[in-house]
Amino acid sequence: MTVSREVELQGHIIDSGMMQTCFGIIMDMGGSFEVEEFDIGRHKDERSYAKLLVSAEDEAQLQSIVHELHQNGANPADPDDAHLEPAPADQVVPKGFYSTTNHPTEIRYDGEWIEVEDIEMDCAVVVEDGEARSASEQSSGEGSEPRDGDDPYAYTKVLNAVEEGDLIVTGEAGIRVSPPERPRGSEGAFGFMQGGVSSERPSETTIANIAEAIEETKSEGGKVLAVCGPALIHSGAREDLARLVREGYIDMISAGNGFAVHDIERDLYGTSLGMDTESLDHPRKGHKHHIYTISEVIREGGIEAAVESGTIESGVMYECVDNDRPFVLAGSIRDDGPLPDTITDAVEAQNAIREQAHEADMVLMLSTLLHSVAVGNCLPSTTRVVCVDINPATVTQLLDRGSAQAVGMVTDIGTFVPILAEKIMDD
Amino acid sequence: MTVSREVELQGHIIDSGMMQTCFGIIMDMGGSFEVEEFDIGRHKDERSYAKLLVSAEDEAQLQSIVHELHQNGANPADPDDAHLEPAPADQVVPKGFYSTTNHPTEIRYDGEWIEVEDIEMDCAVVVEDGEARSASEQSSGEGSEPRDGDDPYAYTKVLNAVEEGDLIVTGEAGIRVSPPERPRGSEGAFGFMQGGVSSERPSETTIANIAEAIEETKSEGGKVLAVCGPALIHSGAREDLARLVREGYIDMISAGNGFAVHDIERDLYGTSLGMDTESLDHPRKGHKHHIYTISEVIREGGIEAAVESGTIESGVMYECVDNDRPFVLAGSIRDDGPLPDTITDAVEAQNAIREQAHEADMVLMLSTLLHSVAVGNCLPSTTRVVCVDINPATVTQLLDRGSAQAVGMVTDIGTFVPILAEKIMDD
Amino acid sequence: MTVSREVELQGHIIDSGMMQTCFGIIMDMGGSFEVEEFDIGRHKDERSYAKLLVSAEDEAQLQSIVHELHQNGANPADPDDAHLEPAPADQVVPKGFYSTTNHPTEIRYDGEWIEVEDIEMDCAVVVEDGEARSASEQSSGEGSEPRDGDDPYAYTKVLNAVEEGDLIVTGEAGIRVSPPERPRGSEGAFGFMQGGVSSERPSETTIANIAEAIEETKSEGGKVLAVCGPALIHSGAREDLARLVREGYIDMISAGNGFAVHDIERDLYGTSLGMDTESLDHPRKGHKHHIYTISEVIREGGIEAAVESGTIESGVMYECVDNDRPFVLAGSIRDDGPLPDTITDAVEAQNAIREQAHEADMVLMLSTLLHSVAVGNCLPSTTRVVCVDINPATVTQLLDRGSAQAVGMVTDIGTFVPILAEKIMDD
Amino acid sequence: MTVSREVELQGHIIDSGMMQTCFGIIMDMGGSFEVEEFDIGRHKDERSYAKLLVSAEDEAQLQSIVHELHQNGANPADPDDAHLEPAPADQVVPKGFYSTTNHPTEIRYDGEWIEVEDIEMDCAVVVEDGEARSASEQSSGEGSEPRDGDDPYAYTKVLNAVEEGDLIVTGEAGIRVSPPERPRGSEGAFGFMQGGVSSERPSETTIANIAEAIEETKSEGGKVLAVCGPALIHSGAREDLARLVREGYIDMISAGNGFAVHDIERDLYGTSLGMDTESLDHPRKGHKHHIYTISEVIREGGIEAAVESGTIESGVMYECVDNDRPFVLAGSIRDDGPLPDTITDAVEAQNAIREQAHEADMVLMLSTLLHSVAVGNCLPSTTRVVCVDINPATVTQLLDRGSAQAVGMVTDIGTFVPILAEKIMDD
Repeated sequence: MTVSREVELQGHIIDSGMMQTCFGIIMDMGGSFEVEEFDIGRHKDERSYAKLLVSAEDEAQLQSIVHELHQNGANPADPDDAHLEPAPADQVVPKGFYSTTNHPTEIRYDGEWIEVEDIEMDCAVVVEDGEARSASEQSSGEGSEPRDGDDPYAYTKVLNAVEEGDLIVTGEAGIRVSPPERPRGSEGAFGFMQGGVSSERPSETTIANIAEAIEETKSEGGKVLAVCGPALIHSGAREDLARLVREGYIDMISAGNGFAVHDIERDLYGTSLGMDTESLDHPRKGHKHHIYTISEVIREGGIEAAVESGTIESGVMYECVDNDRPFVLAGSIRDDGPLPDTITDAVEAQNAIREQAHEADMVLMLSTLLHSVAVGNCLPSTTRVVCVDINPATVTQLLDRGSAQAVGMVTDIGTFVPILAEKIMDD
Repeated sequence: MTVSREVELQGHIIDSGMMQTCFGIIMDMGGSFEVEEFDIGRHKDERSYAKLLVSAEDEAQLQSIVHELHQNGANPADPDDAHLEPAPADQVVPKGFYSTTNHPTEIRYDGEWIEVEDIEMDCAVVVEDGEARSASEQSSGEGSEPRDGDDPYAYTKVLNAVEEGDLIVTGEAGIRVSPPERPRGSEGAFGFMQGGVSSERPSETTIANIAEAIEETKSEGGKVLAVCGPALIHSGAREDLARLVREGYIDMISAGNGFAVHDIERDLYGTSLGMDTESLDHPRKGHKHHIYTISEVIREGGIEAAVESGTIESGVMYECVDNDRPFVLAGSIRDDGPLPDTITDAVEAQNAIREQAHEADMVLMLSTLLHSVAVGNCLPSTTRVVCVDINPATVTQLLDRGSAQAVGMVTDIGTFVPILAEKIMDD
Repeated sequence: MTVSREVELQGHIIDSGMMQTCFGIIMDMGGSFEVEEFDIGRHKDERSYAKLLVSAEDEAQLQSIVHELHQNGANPADPDDAHLEPAPADQVVPKGFYSTTNHPTEIRYDGEWIEVEDIEMDCAVVVEDGEARSASEQSSGEGSEPRDGDDPYAYTKVLNAVEEGDLIVTGEAGIRVSPPERPRGSEGAFGFMQGGVSSERPSETTIANIAEAIEETKSEGGKVLAVCGPALIHSGAREDLARLVREGYIDMISAGNGFAVHDIERDLYGTSLGMDTESLDHPRKGHKHHIYTISEVIREGGIEAAVESGTIESGVMYECVDNDRPFVLAGSIRDDGPLPDTITDAVEAQNAIREQAHEADMVLMLSTLLHSVAVGNCLPSTTRVVCVDINPATVTQLLDRGSAQAVGMVTDIGTFVPILAEKIMDD
Repeated sequence: MTVSREVELQGHIIDSGMMQTCFGIIMDMGGSFEVEEFDIGRHKDERSYAKLLVSAEDEAQLQSIVHELHQNGANPADPDDAHLEPAPADQVVPKGFYSTTNHPTEIRYDGEWIEVEDIEMDCAVVVEDGEARSASEQSSGEGSEPRDGDDPYAYTKVLNAVEEGDLIVTGEAGIRVSPPERPRGSEGAFGFMQGGVSSERPSETTIANIAEAIEETKSEGGKVLAVCGPALIHSGAREDLARLVREGYIDMISAGNGFAVHDIERDLYGTSLGMDTESLDHPRKGHKHHIYTISEVIREGGIEAAVESGTIESGVMYECVDNDRPFVLAGSIRDDGPLPDTITDAVEAQNAIREQAHEADMVLMLSTLLHSVAVGNCLPSTTRVVCVDINPATVTQLLDRGSAQAVGMVTDIGTFVPILAEKIMDD
């Protein structure tokens, strides 16, 4: 016995790899297919269309295949409305709920396709009709624009934010996913961002391209979020990073407790012990300075207070406070202290990270895997991402998320940031 | 103008490298020294003694040098009592507080040397005299034995646990640190643990040595803590790890949300889709299964409930519940869900980790940097540590903590655990 | 002004990624295209056909594009005969000579397509008509079957083997390249070899698959070549590797001077110093043993002589000699000695490697980048390849050669070989 | 039964770690010791002296221990003359020959200590008395100064250069090894070179220190040898490296065939195809350009001829030819071509490398493991070494050779060289 379903692909389905991916999925998962319609774009600017009849041995297998196709941009040819079920309890989703990708997504409601707001991976989709909404503005992402109170709308919620009674999309029907297409070389500063890790490209030229992309983002009114690891401080990139914050090329900082402590330690102890910070980063590992820095900031009540009292006089955190650049310091189990500014609860910290991520138009992931993954989890696949690390495995892992405009660079953050700052600011 | 102070070194000060380290510190930090007394051990079993007169240009420099010497086992020759000051507020330590190493430490109180309990790095030392103690049993580590109510005692507190009025050790006076000496090749199963990463040694023989060390620890009534990363599940080590838990060779598990979810996902979805889990780990990245697993456990109310209801029937977490092996799941900002069992607050999670770490006699760090660092932060330098990872940088970082009995192995966790289990259980 | 040319694609052109690659090439290189014909395979077993009209601004650009398309399997729609020019001098090719890929290749000669023998990358194609051949049997690869003396034939030559007067293919016309298609999951033991590095797969299961692939190769009468790095000896894999050679699961060895020296040093000095080789690989780096081993083998006149005289009594090299398994030891500038068996001239060594590579049906690349690259350079893309290394960058680099049947595994060679030997021989 | 021998240590035996190492060796190898004399340096500038009585169970064990002590700077207290035996045949050393370290070494001959010339690791020591010498000037290193014809002298020979009848040192007697002491922070530009990999130091500051060290070497009339990997070209460092050669900051180049081909390919094809080399390193892997470049240079007869004919007009190799900077291109089995300038025989190539290495006062090892190891093998431990690579394992391996003045840096060669060139030349 065989069961079948029709699915459709649209867009640059060959050039984007979508068609190849879908053929591969069907065969790897043991199904078969026929190409019922195929209308190929004759030119590179034309879009193509294909309709496939996918067959499998039983309904369970077919559903698995269709699910995978769906995650990769193939949509059922016969759209029904999305199926909705209420959440049975707080944090508990209905069985068979639809778990999101990070690609632009629409759901069909009352015969109309509506966009899912604040799309990110691994979330549930909650639908509200116009009436219910005034009381329930608790969308997982804040920055949403005001909407007409009568229209239904859909948005994502992470599992721990689901509330009893939320109407949640289940199954695969009535959902349309649009993986982004990769940009071509000629289109703007992001043209160079064709994915992949650029270990074979000239480093300085790649940095110049990234500089241009930042300038373009800023000139379009966009926001740049820098995700920062402590190696930025060790490697000597602190002053140039602080300068980029001060001059407004970086609008927001996402980091951990360690980054902030190292940054402030440089300010508090960099010269007070008569040590030449130019030649020697930490005097004999300087554990004492580390813990003393934390202690001093706790004594002041926090970073902002320590800046205002004049205790902290320079550095990345200083520039954030002095220039009103918002920062999120997310806690982790390896933290010392932590600083009073560090959000120790992981769920709270994720919410703060999510808010920043949704506001960002371009994200620089600089020498931190943990924080970059956390930010990356909240990004739609349409946000521009630059990932820089000296460990190729980190860069590969961070780029492997289906982003349309992502570039990775395996380089030394201690030379990357100074050259980047020079290219941006000394032109 | 020059200022000077006498310091003493005792023990295997040459063989352990202590004397070399101290000479290096003084010269690197710009001081000078004279060797006033030197009594060398004539045999390898005799201990040596040296008294140095350390000189520097000013008191600040001298203090820095003496501080560093002190962290490495050189103690002032003229012991005073340790200086104590009350904490001015909760979480605020007195200026100049003494920040601990992870080595066995004593402080001098009323002319007597008393051991600092629950020693770990980067803590404050709190002293209580006998009278005050009944009301204030909030030591940072729990497992302390009952003491005679009249004796003074000292213990460590992390900064965030400090309470207003705690009597805290400041300065360097009256503190004695004893870095452990490395064991020699001939002394028991841990003789092979001479530090360093064993990339040049035969893998199977090294695993056999680790197996023997686990058996020795168990036969002495000790406890083995395994710190587990999700790669254990991906790489196919799950069944053998579960067996080690079931058979009691692993007493406690420290892990993150991801490890538990992957472990349970194998149980819930490993076969239900008709997929051969032997040949293909995850069907096409299986994001859906990951988030569905979390959702199922939330629905049940937690891992224990899901085991008891029969939903979870195998795996590492199952064996923990079924055999009363305590586990700590520490949250992180990259978690999905998280599971109800995951401790999302980093400070709370650290406290849970600390309790496990202080109980452990041997720690296996298996393919996780984050959790291994968190556990390592709470360990005294005398606990036996085995660190296994395929990334040499991870192994090097984890071993670089002055542990006396630590061995690192750069290998594949997916072959390590099966061979380890075979060597332990099939002898 | 625009110039255009028609190219054709045939086979599983979507599923194999060929069409996507070709579209990408044209756009990346600044050309444009129209799809003139497109006949898609309706089922997964049907082959597709497409004809593209490729346009560019000038002839030079068009040629570059067509060249790249050609390397990736798109062939000109209007085949002419291949153009031939005589080599002007020894080692000097005609300008514009055709440089080969490692994919099966045919050239058109007198209106007929003839297969290029001993295809490998970066070679010239030499054509001989039937008459000339008796005098010039110096094809770069030996193992060619006898041919009818009257037929023309074509084969590859590396640049340094080209002789004055050789008829060499130039330009792009009359050449047909067929990149292999990736096998599907269900087809035989090599079905699992779908490329990519299997860091996300269970290690033991992957090793079992490799064991099965070796057994299948042997049962089909094929030959297995192992490329061996010195880490095999350090890591303790020596005995099991020797066993695989003795039992005939490995037919040929390709290695360097260092591998052989380490292997023999184990035999000569492993026990003579009373040291337990089970617990300690090398006594304090053992430089002396290393150089003494070389000296002893030189004294005997070579490995075979040292085996025959009874000086060498065990190990991988011993088994090679004792069981007539041919080995190639290729020299390098980091060698000590070298042994008399080591081929110190790089070109001679490449010729020896080439001969082995052309005979191999399956190649195991075990913990050596240098020798694996050298062997890989001589392999057609149709040979089965397994690459094992603990460094992910090595595995990625070795797999990135368009092989159809290649699998990479990031694991510890010291546990891999024992498990492999057990799975092959203890079934 | 026990056997014993006296050994002596002299110099900064504690600070340099020599004493600790020696104590460790004795205990690890199962011996015991008594300290018979110990005279410690009272100040950091005073040298110390120790005499140990080392005991073992039998003569074989004692010899092993004394051998190891000897390699690490402990010399027998009762010096005899070195024992000499004639080599029985070409390339065959007498049994029990002394294998050198890379540390300054003297041998005792006729009651006098004479320095071993051209010291390098893993060699035999050949002694000639004054009379024999005129006929046998075939010392392994060439650059030796003329000597008084009547004095005996000693020098190193690699095994393959040994000739029948050479008088070769055997055993341990009459040999004195002096491992260098590490320099202190304050002594000159090389003060920062305290070994270890500087991943925790500010990158720009470290590069500035290296720049200063190069300038100091040049101002002292020393020679700088750069060992160059092909990544220098891929990463965009070519122009700045060429500039350093042109301006005389780099005196000699040691590289492989691939480096030279990539460098010349940039010159020949970088602009001729209308491709913007600023934005894209290689057009789609450019295999054709690679092999065409080789072909063009072969056609010209070599690099020098191609420079003189005007075919090659820029780049590192161009500057070498144009400014008479000698280069060695050593062949390897992974080479394409090779170029006519490439020395394909490994032994010949080692001899050429050896000559360069002995002339160098400072060596920059830039992104190549193979060639750096080959050069490093020929260096005495007193030569200044800088090792730069993005792979930490490469840096660690290259530094692990007992060099006194070595610094490693884990960074991106594509940003390192431009910053280095700027710091040297734009001051």
